[in-house]
Parts: sequence; structure tokens; C-alpha cells
Amino acid sequence: MIRKICVVVTARASYSRVRTLLQAIAQHPCLELQLVIAASALLEKYGSLSQSIRKDAFAITAKVSNALDSENATAAAKTTGLGTIELASVFENIRPDIVVTIADRFETMSTAIAAAFMNIPLAHIQGGEMTGNIDDKVRHAVTQLADIHFAATRMATARIIKMGQQPETVYHTGCPSIDQVFEVFVDPRIDFDPFHLYGGVGRTFDLSKPYLMVMQHPVTTEPENARQQIKQTFDAIHALNIPTLWFWPNADPGTSEIAGGIRTFREHHENLPIHFFKNTEPIHFLKLLKNTACLIGNSSAGIREGGCLGTPVVNIGSRQLGRERGSNVMDATPEKDSILNAVHQQLAKGNYAQNHMYGDGNAGRKIAALLATVPLTFHKQLSY
Amino acid sequence: MIRKICVVVTARASYSRVRTLLQAIAQHPCLELQLVIAASALLEKYGSLSQSIRKDAFAITAKVSNALDSENATAAAKTTGLGTIELASVFENIRPDIVVTIADRFETMSTAIAAAFMNIPLAHIQGGEMTGNIDDKVRHAVTQLADIHFAATRMATARIIKMGQQPETVYHTGCPSIDQVFEVFVDPRIDFDPFHLYGGVGRTFDLSKPYLMVMQHPVTTEPENARQQIKQTFDAIHALNIPTLWFWPNADPGTSEIAGGIRTFREHHENLPIHFFKNTEPIHFLKLLKNTACLIGNSSAGIREGGCLGTPVVNIGSRQLGRERGSNVMDATPEKDSILNAVHQQLAKGNYAQNHMYGDGNAGRKIAALLATVPLTFHKQLSY
Amino acid sequence: MIRKICVVVTARASYSRVRTLLQAIAQHPCLELQLVIAASALLEKYGSLSQSIRKDAFAITAKVSNALDSENATAAAKTTGLGTIELASVFENIRPDIVVTIADRFETMSTAIAAAFMNIPLAHIQGGEMTGNIDDKVRHAVTQLADIHFAATRMATARIIKMGQQPETVYHTGCPSIDQVFEVFVDPRIDFDPFHLYGGVGRTFDLSKPYLMVMQHPVTTEPENARQQIKQTFDAIHALNIPTLWFWPNADPGTSEIAGGIRTFREHHENLPIHFFKNTEPIHFLKLLKNTACLIGNSSAGIREGGCLGTPVVNIGSRQLGRERGSNVMDATPEKDSILNAVHQQLAKGNYAQNHMYGDGNAGRKIAALLATVPLTFHKQLSY
Amino acid sequence: MIRKICVVVTARASYSRVRTLLQAIAQHPCLELQLVIAASALLEKYGSLSQSIRKDAFAITAKVSNALDSENATAAAKTTGLGTIELASVFENIRPDIVVTIADRFETMSTAIAAAFMNIPLAHIQGGEMTGNIDDKVRHAVTQLADIHFAATRMATARIIKMGQQPETVYHTGCPSIDQVFEVFVDPRIDFDPFHLYGGVGRTFDLSKPYLMVMQHPVTTEPENARQQIKQTFDAIHALNIPTLWFWPNADPGTSEIAGGIRTFREHHENLPIHFFKNTEPIHFLKLLKNTACLIGNSSAGIREGGCLGTPVVNIGSRQLGRERGSNVMDATPEKDSILNAVHQQLAKGNYAQNHMYGDGNAGRKIAALLATVPLTFHKQLSY
Repeated sequence: MIRKICVVVTARASYSRVRTLLQAIAQHPCLELQLVIAASALLEKYGSLSQSIRKDAFAITAKVSNALDSENATAAAKTTGLGTIELASVFENIRPDIVVTIADRFETMSTAIAAAFMNIPLAHIQGGEMTGNIDDKVRHAVTQLADIHFAATRMATARIIKMGQQPETVYHTGCPSIDQVFEVFVDPRIDFDPFHLYGGVGRTFDLSKPYLMVMQHPVTTEPENARQQIKQTFDAIHALNIPTLWFWPNADPGTSEIAGGIRTFREHHENLPIHFFKNTEPIHFLKLLKNTACLIGNSSAGIREGGCLGTPVVNIGSRQLGRERGSNVMDATPEKDSILNAVHQQLAKGNYAQNHMYGDGNAGRKIAALLATVPLTFHKQLSY
Repeated sequence: MIRKICVVVTARASYSRVRTLLQAIAQHPCLELQLVIAASALLEKYGSLSQSIRKDAFAITAKVSNALDSENATAAAKTTGLGTIELASVFENIRPDIVVTIADRFETMSTAIAAAFMNIPLAHIQGGEMTGNIDDKVRHAVTQLADIHFAATRMATARIIKMGQQPETVYHTGCPSIDQVFEVFVDPRIDFDPFHLYGGVGRTFDLSKPYLMVMQHPVTTEPENARQQIKQTFDAIHALNIPTLWFWPNADPGTSEIAGGIRTFREHHENLPIHFFKNTEPIHFLKLLKNTACLIGNSSAGIREGGCLGTPVVNIGSRQLGRERGSNVMDATPEKDSILNAVHQQLAKGNYAQNHMYGDGNAGRKIAALLATVPLTFHKQLSY
Repeated sequence: MIRKICVVVTARASYSRVRTLLQAIAQHPCLELQLVIAASALLEKYGSLSQSIRKDAFAITAKVSNALDSENATAAAKTTGLGTIELASVFENIRPDIVVTIADRFETMSTAIAAAFMNIPLAHIQGGEMTGNIDDKVRHAVTQLADIHFAATRMATARIIKMGQQPETVYHTGCPSIDQVFEVFVDPRIDFDPFHLYGGVGRTFDLSKPYLMVMQHPVTTEPENARQQIKQTFDAIHALNIPTLWFWPNADPGTSEIAGGIRTFREHHENLPIHFFKNTEPIHFLKLLKNTACLIGNSSAGIREGGCLGTPVVNIGSRQLGRERGSNVMDATPEKDSILNAVHQQLAKGNYAQNHMYGDGNAGRKIAALLATVPLTFHKQLSY
Repeated sequence: MIRKICVVVTARASYSRVRTLLQAIAQHPCLELQLVIAASALLEKYGSLSQSIRKDAFAITAKVSNALDSENATAAAKTTGLGTIELASVFENIRPDIVVTIADRFETMSTAIAAAFMNIPLAHIQGGEMTGNIDDKVRHAVTQLADIHFAATRMATARIIKMGQQPETVYHTGCPSIDQVFEVFVDPRIDFDPFHLYGGVGRTFDLSKPYLMVMQHPVTTEPENARQQIKQTFDAIHALNIPTLWFWPNADPGTSEIAGGIRTFREHHENLPIHFFKNTEPIHFLKLLKNTACLIGNSSAGIREGGCLGTPVVNIGSRQLGRERGSNVMDATPEKDSILNAVHQQLAKGNYAQNHMYGDGNAGRKIAALLATVPLTFHKQLSY
């Protein structure tokens, strides 16, 4: 019996997180991949997935346009409600044996509710981690709705069990997003021209010399501070005056504030050596991350992928608070001076040793193998 | 500063569970009650709430019609999605300081998501309990989304904390649904005629002589067995041939199966001494429960209210598996003989002593007092 | 180039109306049928379509559960809104060349809006007719959204053109619901036992002797009168005391009122020679209609199919006001005496001559042939 | 008896169209205004209404966020479906006596369906006009759902009646959007600084010298051509090299294409004397329109308000095809040379005489007076 595995991708970032898993499912003799693309993953303005998916040769089983156009938290709730309705219809028509949902973005709640309420076994990737904001609420709520847990770290595995899930349903597989990091080690050189390949706006420069990277998202519990926080990072980059690759944030409450801040800053500082990108291929991003002098911002990429690559990271503010991390990460408050100080320390130290706490490069294959064999149950008994 | 407390009631049963809390909020000098009635609570066919609410003199702030008309699990998911959308609009327009959600029905997820995603502090009543089915998933997911927890029992309090919630946000208040049970003790006699008052169908009989009560809901993880399970209960009641008050089930996947089973049974056994009710006032239900020789079925009322009243209860099947209970409850499998056997044992034993494990009669007032003073935060840090 | 023709069926009644069209599309070498089943057509309680569709060997391309569970007009609006959302997703995923919508039920508006707003050519069957209630608003609004019109009668054709549609987009094809009427003439005898075949409830009787048929729907602009109106019909049938086949109404605001009225009536008059059916195969219904002494109620079947068969009809109240009809129809007000009087007159007269004003039996084939060849445009210029 | 009049505004442009009507309703002793703001009218990026509404001192009864975030036609359908659901809830809670919907944007369909299906009398403003694109479908469909019609012109009045509406329900009131045009005549001078007042981007210049205005929307049936069409207009403006005020388009399929085109153009032609505005107060826009040498684009403002003011207008492409217009409008194809040629002709001619075909300045008051007295019916009989 071939099992139909439905993976629901609701954001650009989630796609690259599970790419090796999608490949492992597609290649597994006992599994059939049902790929559903939804919410902000369908919006061109955040960088289209279509090209990546075509290149990876996955067929899209269904598209679900459910993202509302609004800058506020009401829209996040409505997007989730609409996604629940539409995914219920999709699941009813394609009848998956297991639904897979990823991490902790708010839209994953749509996937989790539709599957759980329709009695379809739900597998969750990246449960049990902690970051200290709304994502925690979503992530742990999805854990409670899920029947099968694929945890990235040892601590995450322990936490899922402590939350009442039966140990035999919790698998410590590592994170599939780390799998592709290991491809970088084959040839870590920047053998492509990101300026030519991805366009974007701003100045170009020589990537064989030291450069910084910035990736800063709005903090969902503090959307009103988004503009102020991004300004502090700008001011720090301004003061550093080192060539910088700046990556555009996800769709979240507060995103348009950040986007507005970026635009204003650019108009007033056109001569700074900064280049802004909307999207890059994951492997290209990882090579840039491997070679950067320091990643600055509040993305999980610094902790997860950066840790594996030994990249120096300055983590700003509360967004990653509580996330398990290696020694490559140094914290800063969202203030120019704090950021500056931390970057200077990291530049002085240089690269770190590799750290495999988030995965050994085989998570996608391990998860696919488990999806082919785990008991198909949606009736769980909590263990206390 | 008056705090606006929005209580969302999505089912008839939930209303009576929080009636004393609604009164305590309405009477509290620092609180303003915003009562929202949604989903199956608005459907006449499950017994309208309008009359009860009018009698209790609460104003309805908003009505949300979001229940889909279908017998399957897809409808449950869509009802929840639609509820999320509509409650987001309601919350945006009425701007509550705290949203209160109750227990574990699937629609409570709408309330929890809308509040959590909109950064409104969410209080949850009856978290931390265990029953061993889909309700567990919903209840614990709501716990993860909630900021303030009002637990009914000591064990529930401990479980919520074990699931990672900060101890200072978890209050052991007892359950407001138990508050009204204590009103029964003032005068436990059946001083009303339920046949006259509530109509319903079937034969009438003398309630001063021993009578049974039945309240059996579909098990949401086994909707396909609903009809078969209800038949076994019928057969047991048939064999007992004791006057019986039968209460209509909630709106759930499987309800129409049960309703169909009831109708078929009635047509073939019109002369049995059974009377069917759709709805009764809580105080009347409790007096009937106090005086019944035995409650049969799978309702939580047997364990919670029945325990407090000392009523003998036969609990059928898996629906209440894992729920904390007193000695008044005896289990049976959903088979005629098992049910018969347990009822005979209970009839032989007679009434039990009162048990206050679910509350001491002051939960509504305690919770209202806390709602007036708890810190208004929606940014929680989990404790591990 | 094969054209993909998506037919959206939102009610049991609509399916039998277009069955011959579905066959003609499925058999046409240049057309591919995409059958979408939605709204009340999916609800078992109004009689499931699944069996009919399986028997007719059509594949279902997508199911859309969007019917809300409520007795009021708000639910009709929400069902339509939800249907619009879900059909937009369906159309985006199956990309039809033409969408076909049928007649005038409120849910057809979902189909019309989704297709029109997505720039998919929209074909409308049964436009241009008049019945004098909310259906008129829906039917004519759909005409304004449609690009291709298949009208049943000469008057309907003229009305569509008068409403501004370009004459070259309006085709007088007859109504496909009439096609199957012509199958009756091959062998008009009742060669089946409806009591055995369709179950239902009530007494059985000999159909070779004179019998009546009743089919009465709630009037959507007068839902509050539904129960009172159905009672008058009951009283008339009671007084007539002739064996009667009674057919259950569609899902509409007011349906539950009618259903409640039917149930109450049955309980008080169990000995009357009436049998109630939820659903029958169209060909069986038509044979019963051909042989009945008189059809009583407010269904369009009396005017359309009944006219073709020459069946005597008593049409009650305002629901069919304005519908083009033959001499076989006699009007009555929704009052016992008026109904009684009209039925007595019809019984005295006996059968009428056939009338082909609604179609000559080839509408399905004609429409399919046109769907294969009409210009695919969604940009219409109105002609004034 | 005070009548509650609910006006639903779904776009910035619609608000200024009915401002005088809102004032007339608010001031009428027998009417109570219920103002509902929905869809793109709530999006900051298209220019917020909040400030205008506050300035006009209207209270907002309810806000409905239902705009989806997507560039395609699927989003338009889903926005409409979601709007229908949410407006049904709003109407159920605020219970208006009459619902008023405006013109022909796709979201007006939500208002029309919710009101019509809930049996609330629906009044439609600006029905019966013709423009030759998708708006025609929407406008005429709304006419079929509406019970009361307030037509702007004599021809529109005649067309509504020809479409089957009873003449006694069709009122030739003129268009309330024209009312405010008459305020301009009191003092037509530009007595404010739009660059200072409204910000925007681009160069500033002296408005006492000849200047052009541009207002170009995507054509909804040709969204794929939006970028190409806007480029032709740019090229024409480039060649003219006359100071130009450019106004940002509405939210529609194709809008982001136009916005992208504007951004690209600006980056390559920063020295051209063009200034871009997102939004202006209606009275300020009208004064600018009164004084411009020529309005270029495809907005209805050129035909309606421009005709009243005698402003020379170059109307590009198919968007206004079929709209009744005065002699002040000259057509051009969406090609640089055609546009250039027409603008040169208009500049040579100068201003035109005033034309009152769209209203005499009293439409708001006339409509309010009628809303207070028209029969409240939702049961219409079409007249053929």
C-alpha cells in the first residue's frame, strides 16, 4: 500500500526547510507526495516559489490562495480561518494518509486543525523548540494537535514528551532544513554572482572581501516597534560601513512597517554599500552564509544553519529568545550601540567550529522512512 | 479602568457551564461582560439558548452563525475556520481586554486562535483535564494558546504547569459548572413537571418513583459507530424497562446518526416508558440528576455534576476515558450486557456521598475576581 | 482542442434538470465534463446524489461542502459567500474553459460570481424566466453575469435580449430537464414499486387507482408563513382522503418549518393514506407524475414537466407567479378551500394534451453542441 | 419611526462619491446612518479613509476586513465571497431597514447579495450606466438584486426600466458624486499646496502655470496588459514634458502591475516634472481638476466630474467605453502617439462649458429624502 503524504507549505521559508524531505518522499517506493502550496507562499511579492518548485521537479497537487491583504493581526486570524476552510476541502478531495506541517508560522494552525478535525494523522516537524514569542504558542498548540513528532534536537524531543505526548510518537530525526547545509561543504566557494542572478536593488561589491549579511523580521508581539527596531539595525550598518547583503522579511504583521523603513532608509542613504534581495535559492543563501563575516538580525537561520556552518551571528532582540543554540551566536538588544558592539566582537573572533545539534544531514531521509512505517493513528492517549 | 471581558459561548452545554461566571462578571464593579453566542449555540434544533439568556438578563453583544450543515468531520473543520474569521471581526469591533473560552469543544479553537493571533489575552476554563479523545487535542492546544488558566481540579492544575505554562498563570479555581450544583442542595425536590415544561416526545410517568436518565453523545473519533453504540444503550434500557428520561445529544460529527437511531428505535418501541427531551434549564436538569436512580451514557455531567451530587453513574465507552472522577462512576463497554450489568450494580448500591473535587461552588466568583486583577499579557514565556 | 466544461450542481433538483446535458457533454468528442457537486446537493438529509451519479457513471471532479446549518436567511447569504470562495479555488485548480450554472437557486450566485470575476466564460441555463419571488432576483442577476444563455422558452429568450444581452449570445434550446420527460412516453406504465424502492414513511396503497401527488416548497420571501401554508395543504389532503404521494422539499429558508409541520401532521393523522418520500429517481418521479390524478403544491415540476406530460396541476400561492405555463395548471391560494376547489375541478377534467413550450426533448444535445462551438469570450458588450 | 440606512463603502473612491448623501442621511430627522467600511477602503496602502471620515464626523458602525492579498482574479472572487459572509453577520447584528450600495466595483456584489438574500430592501446608486467591461456585469447584476434604484442620468434611468425593473422603483436623482463639484464653483482657485498637504513623491512645481493630471486604472478584463498600457501613457507624458500630477490607481487585478510600472519609470526618469499622489481630499482633487489643462487616463472622473467642471479630458482605451459623456472628452487608444495627439488637441481648445447630465448638485439630499419615504419592500415583481 502506497501512503499518500500531504505536505502543506505556507511560506517561502518553509519550502526550503523541507526540500530534502520532499525529495525523500518523492523517491520513496512506498510514499506518494501530495504538495500543497498556500498563503504567502503563493504571493509574488515575497518571492515566488514556482521557479524553485519547477526546478526541483515537484508537481503541485493544489494551490490555496488564502492570504488577506492587511497589515494587522486581524488579517493573520482571518488568513488562518480561511486556510482551515480551504484545506478541509483539499483534504476531502485528495484524501491523504498523513498530513505534514512545518514549524511554527501562524498559518500552520490551519493545516493542523483541518487534519486533526478530519481524523487524518498529523505529523509535525520542528516541534518542541522554544523562541519566546507568539510562535511558541502556535508551535506547542500544533504539537498538541499532532500525532507524530519529528524533533530537531535532543532538548526539543524531551520537551514534546514532557508536554504529554507519548514517547513512542516522538522521533529525534534532526531538522531537514539542515540537510542542505551539508551540501555547502562539498564546495563552499561563492561560485555564482548573486547581484546578476537575483537582481534586487542597491550597490554591488566584491564578495571575496569581508561582507555582512542582514535578515531581520518583525517581532509578531511587537509589530508597532517594527519600524523603530529596523532603524537601529540600519544605523549600526551605516556606522560599520562594510558591504552588506540585506534579505527581505517574511509576510507577517509588521512586515510593511519594515519594508517602509527599508525604503525610507534607502532613499536617504543611496551611496551605502548595501544590496537588498527578495529571495535566493537556498544553496546560494547558504554559501553566502558560510562566507559572511557576520550575520546580523533575528532570523533562525543564524542559529540553525549558521551554527552548522560555524558562521558568526549577532542575534538582535527577543525573537529567538529561548531557542537552543551553539556558541556562534552573540546577543544584542535592538539598539545601535549594542548591535555595533556585538558585531565588532564577532569580527574579531572569526569563524566557529561546526555544530550538529540541529541535524546530521540525513533528516529528510529519516523522516520519509518513518512516514512509510509509523502506525496511522489519530487517536492519541496522552501520557501523564 | 473597567475591563471588557468577552465570553464566547459556542454550544448550549457551554452556556450552563459558565452561567455563574457570567453573573459574577456582570455584577463585578470593575468588569463589563461582552457575551458572544456562536455556532451550534444559535441552532434551534439543539435547543435555543435565547430563552435562557433572556431569563438570566444578559445582553448578547454579537451573534456569529458559523455552523455548517453536514454530518462529517470536514464540516467541523470548516465551522472552525469560519468561526475564526467571524470572531476576528467581532473582536476587532468590540475590542475586549480579555477573551474567555470554555473547555474543549472543537469550536473553542476558533475563539482561541482569533484571540491569540490578535494579541488579546486569552483565558481558558477547564484546561488540563483528560478524556482520551479528540477533545484532548483541542483542550491542550487551547492551553498552549491561552495566557491565563482557570483549572477545575488539582490534577488539572498540575498538568497545565507540566505542559510548560508558567505556574503564576495557572489558577485552581474549581469549575463554574459545579457552582449551580450547590443550588440543588437548598431544595433537592423535583418541584416542577418536566413533561409539561419542556414537551419533548414519548411517554410520561411518575418521577417520585425510581427513574433512569440517559445522555449519550457520539464519540468524535468513532462517528461511524455512533448508531451501533446508541442501539446497545437502547437495548439495555429496553431490557431494564424502568421509566427513563433521555436527553438529546450535542451537535457533533455522528449526531445525526444518533438522532436517526433514536427515531428508528422510537418508532419500533412506542410503548416503552421513555421520554425524550431536547433541552432543559440547568437547575431542572440538576434536580433530575440528583433524584435519578442512575445516569447512563457518556456525558461528562455524570462525572462532574453527578460526583458533586452523589448520583450513581454508568459511564459507557471511551468518551470520558482519562477524566478524573469519584467513586460514583462505574464503567461499561458499549454493549448491552455490560451496560445492564453496571446499571444493576448501581441500582443495588444507591446514592453516594458528595465529592467536591471539581469545585466548591464559588468558581464563578473566584474567576471573575481574578479576571479583574490578573496582568493583561499575551506574551508568555514557557517555563522548562 | 478539447473544451473543459465545468457544470456546478448545487441541489438535488438541479442534477436531474441537467442529466441529459451531462450525458451529452460526456459523450461529445470535443468536450470534457468537469462535474462539481456543492452545497445542499451533498447533504444526505435532502437525499444523496451519490447513488444517482454513480448509476449515471459520471466522475465527480470536486466536492464543495458549503451549506450552513441554519434556518434563516443569514445562512443563505453565508452559504453563498463560502461557495464563492471555494469555487474560486476549484476553478483555479481545474481551469475550465466554460462554467455552466443552472436556473435560479440562491447558491447559483456563487458559481456565477466565481466564474465571472475569474474571467471564465459563464453559460446559464433557464435564464429569462419569471416566477415572481427572490428566485427572479437571482436568475436575472446571473443572466447579467453570464456570457452565454441557453433559454428554455421563446418568451425567456426574448426577455434575456430585452435585458441587454446581445442576441447572438442567447440560444433558444429548450430546457434539458424536459428531455427525460420524453423517455416516459416510451413506456408510461408504473413498472416499479416506489414504496419498496424508496422506503420513506407512511401508508402504502395501490397506484393503479387514482392518487394525488404533493410537492410544496417554502416561499423564500415568506419563510415565516411556511408552517401555516403547509398546514392548509394538509387540511385539503385530509378532506380529500385520496391516496397521496408526498415529496419532501428542498433545503431553503423555511424548510425546517415545513419539515416540522409535516412531522406534527403525521403524528396526528397516522391513518391517512399518505406516503412521504425524500427522493426518487427522476424517471420514476416522471412516471408517477404522468399517472397521477393531480399534482398539488408550488413546484415548477407541475408547470414544466407536468405541462409536457399533460398532467393536471393545482399550483398554490405565489411561488410560480409569472412562470410561463400551459393550460394544465390551475391556481389556488394557500387556503384549504381554494385548494380543495381547484383539485375537484382538475379531477373532473382529467388529463391534458402534451405541451412542448419548455422543450422538444433535445435540449441537452443542442446545448452540448453549442458549448463545443460558441466563441469563448467573457468580455461582453451590452446592446441598447 | 426612524429608518436605519446602512451604507456600505468598499473603496476609497466610493466614499467621496457618496459623501453628500452620507451628510444628508445623517442630518435627516427620520434617518439614522449606519456606515460600514470594508475591503480595500480599509487598506492604508490605497490611502486611508479614516482621516476623511473623522473630518466629516461620521461614526463607523462596523469595519469588515475582507480584501485578499493577491494580484489575480481569484482573489477578487474570494474577497467578494468573504465580504458576503461578513456583511451577513453585520446586517444580522445591526438590522438595517435599507442597505445602500454604490456603483459597480466587484465588492459591491457582496453587499447586494447579503442584503437581497436576507430580505433587506436594497438601494443601488449609479445603476443603469454602461462602461463596456466587467463593471457592466457587476452593475447590472446589482440592479437585478436591488429594490430601489437611484440613477444618475436620463439614459441610465431608461435602461434600468428596460431591464425589467418597475418604473415606480427607479428614481432619476443625479449622482451624489457630482454634488461636491458644485462646491468648487464657490471659489475655484487652488488655495492649498497639495505637495505640502499630501506628500507623495516626485518633483514639485508651480500650479498657477499649465499642468496635466493623470489617473489611469488597470482594465479588469485586460490585467495582463496593465504594465504595457501604463508605459504608453508614461511615454506620452515624457514627450509632452509638462508638469503633471499623477494619481495612484484603485486596488484591482492589475494594480500591482501598474504600481510596478510607475516605480520603474520613476527610477529611470527622476528629473521629469511629475508628482505622484496616493490620495487627496475630494474638494482638493476637484479644484485641481477644475484648473488642469487636461486630465489624461481612463478614470470616470474625467467624464463625470470633468464634464460638470468643463475640464478637457483625454480618455484612454476601453475602460469607459459606453459611458454617457459630454463634449469635453476626447478618446485615445492606449498608444503613445494617439495619447499625444489627443492631448495636443485638448490643449489647443481649452476649457469647455459646464454640463449637468450627471447631476444638478442636489442628488444627496434627493436620495436621502426618498430613503425616508420609499416603500420598504424586497419582493419585487418585474415588469415585462
